[in-house]
Amino acid sequence: MPRHRTASEQVSAALLDAAETVLDRDGVAAVTVRAVAREAGVAPMGVYNRFSNKDGLLAALAIRAFDELAAAIDVGPDGGPADRLRRASRGYRRYALSHPARYTLIFDVGSPAADPASPVTTRGREVFETLVQMVRGLALRRGLDPVHAAQAMWNGQHGAVTLELAGVLQTPDAAATFDQTIDALIRGLQATRS
Amino acid sequence: MPRHRTASEQVSAALLDAAETVLDRDGVAAVTVRAVAREAGVAPMGVYNRFSNKDGLLAALAIRAFDELAAAIDVGPDGGPADRLRRASRGYRRYALSHPARYTLIFDVGSPAADPASPVTTRGREVFETLVQMVRGLALRRGLDPVHAAQAMWNGQHGAVTLELAGVLQTPDAAATFDQTIDALIRGLQATRS
Repeated sequence: MPRHRTASEQVSAALLDAAETVLDRDGVAAVTVRAVAREAGVAPMGVYNRFSNKDGLLAALAIRAFDELAAAIDVGPDGGPADRLRRASRGYRRYALSHPARYTLIFDVGSPAADPASPVTTRGREVFETLVQMVRGLALRRGLDPVHAAQAMWNGQHGAVTLELAGVLQTPDAAATFDQTIDALIRGLQATRS
Repeated sequence: MPRHRTASEQVSAALLDAAETVLDRDGVAAVTVRAVAREAGVAPMGVYNRFSNKDGLLAALAIRAFDELAAAIDVGPDGGPADRLRRASRGYRRYALSHPARYTLIFDVGSPAADPASPVTTRGREVFETLVQMVRGLALRRGLDPVHAAQAMWNGQHGAVTLELAGVLQTPDAAATFDQTIDALIRGLQATRS
């Protein structure tokens, strides 16, 4: 049976929902204590008390976004390593396209995950580790570190979805181009052709 | 002997220099007719007369940025196709890291190159075509369109430099990770191992 949330936890969750509404609707720069309080219908002090300031709000939103991204790339244990990477990558793309403001928050300039001391960075590293574990399943080229290989995969995923979001892709079928990028990386990182 | 620029052309170039100074220093959002006029020490009407509005300024800046990017990835005819792609990619990374605001202008959300009717989009397509031509030199996998292969290369380049600029890379050596990403793509796009 799931633990009941305390009243205090429920209030925090409701404020975070309001912050996410502001983020999705108006972008990262619009997430202020005042705007979130207005959205939630509470006094600004109610937001300050729980999140301290704008940075506290953005950190909490970023942790939530990383949790969602982790769920989006979780494809379970079934399938071979290349197939699992392809499916996880498609989940990654779907998440970015469905929630562009949350995606921008965690991976664009100004991300809380750029601060080594932030818990957001710790959570981001954990989610990246999921990708590293999937990449470890590939027969990587000799001498290629799995962390570096996972970063290369992520570079391809991130480049594809951000150019798609910016509307500057030079190919007509974004989904097909995304898959081709992932396939090329999977093949190129491996010692033997898959 | 180079043609002398007319006085009018010199004024336009000076205003564009001022606009670029504002862009590099304060970001895309700060490039307004008023800010550029202040930077150049002229009346706002002098900027309006030549660039119409903020969008006109950004379009002119974007064309200039694409010209610079084209020069940055121009590696000449020497070397094999994979080697040329590696060197062009390094030039691409250097340009993005040296001029992050110009790079953001042309490839982030809000880019003038997302408007099919803009001359910026035409210029961007020309620069992309340089990459397509380089990729054509590779022995591409059967059935792989060079335009799609070039987009995959670009996805890797763009993802690597934007995550580096955002400060969220998970590997310690950004230059090495960039090269590994490009190498993996070059290998993965080819029919035979290079």
